[in-house]
Amino acid sequence: MKRIALLLVAVATLAGVVAYMAPSSGQAGGEAAPIFVTKIPPGYRDWRLISVAREEGDLNDIRAILGNDQAIKAYREGKLPFPDGTIIARIAWSYDPSEENNKTFGRPQSFVAGPPKNGVQFMVKDSRKYASTGGWGYAHFDDGKPADEAVLKTCFPCHQAIKARDFVFTRYVP
Amino acid sequence: MKRIALLLVAVATLAGVVAYMAPSSGQAGGEAAPIFVTKIPPGYRDWRLISVAREEGDLNDIRAILGNDQAIKAYREGKLPFPDGTIIARIAWSYDPSEENNKTFGRPQSFVAGPPKNGVQFMVKDSRKYASTGGWGYAHFDDGKPADEAVLKTCFPCHQAIKARDFVFTRYVP
Repeated sequence: MKRIALLLVAVATLAGVVAYMAPSSGQAGGEAAPIFVTKIPPGYRDWRLISVAREEGDLNDIRAILGNDQAIKAYREGKLPFPDGTIIARIAWSYDPSEENNKTFGRPQSFVAGPPKNGVQFMVKDSRKYASTGGWGYAHFDDGKPADEAVLKTCFPCHQAIKARDFVFTRYVP
Repeated sequence: MKRIALLLVAVATLAGVVAYMAPSSGQAGGEAAPIFVTKIPPGYRDWRLISVAREEGDLNDIRAILGNDQAIKAYREGKLPFPDGTIIARIAWSYDPSEENNKTFGRPQSFVAGPPKNGVQFMVKDSRKYASTGGWGYAHFDDGKPADEAVLKTCFPCHQAIKARDFVFTRYVP
């Protein structure tokens, strides 16, 4: 039974990967045109934590950056560039004051994650497929729907600022 | 080979659990006295994310709350009380403005996790062992060293405020 279960897991995982690696763009032969990620990587909410952050301004959220196994391994070993197969996820939530916590602390000081906000974003490393954008495919999903290519085209220009760390802003925190 | 590897993992895990479940207090027979957790649960940095938060005031940190498999399962199923074996971890870091990010955003708005701060805390569910504190053992470690019992005695009085959610403040965020 164990062997069958393992086999089933392996097949299911493979199926997921194959579905995931399927061409994500309808472009034919446009080698220089950026290609984006249009499927949500399965199971990302179970990935391990890379770091957390808070964005003020228009974003006004609190966020967590998670990584798949390849991402966590590369971060912990301090190896750059990230290997193909690395995926980094950014989840974000409303930045909400917690009355409950504040009551306990005896003063207003506590902010917690509220409802999901500002969508979910991914960077997927495939140095050949995404060669025109530093080896990374970019994705943004709102309520499960991928953002327009016009939106995704704004990702790489900003990430270029951090080319020295393989285009990844977030640092791993222990 | 696979079987041997699996067995080794099982043995290692069991060894960890046994070491972890060893008596954590020198008290003999003091049934009503609170008992605290004095060993860091192994592997907690690999646990899945429950939520994130920001504390202003004296704490002045940004934090992540992680849970072991039992914790995540109970949260996602919305089951209370949490089952014995549940462990919830609170990690925190310095709340640092990110000049790097701000330069890219074009304005000061980005705060990231800096060096670890305010220690690491745990709540461990064992309804019999920790019966005098709502079924939860509390722990706080600074640089790997457990806090004094005087410090740990301050945990439960505050957590009592949230008895309706089995003494756990943090809500799971999707």
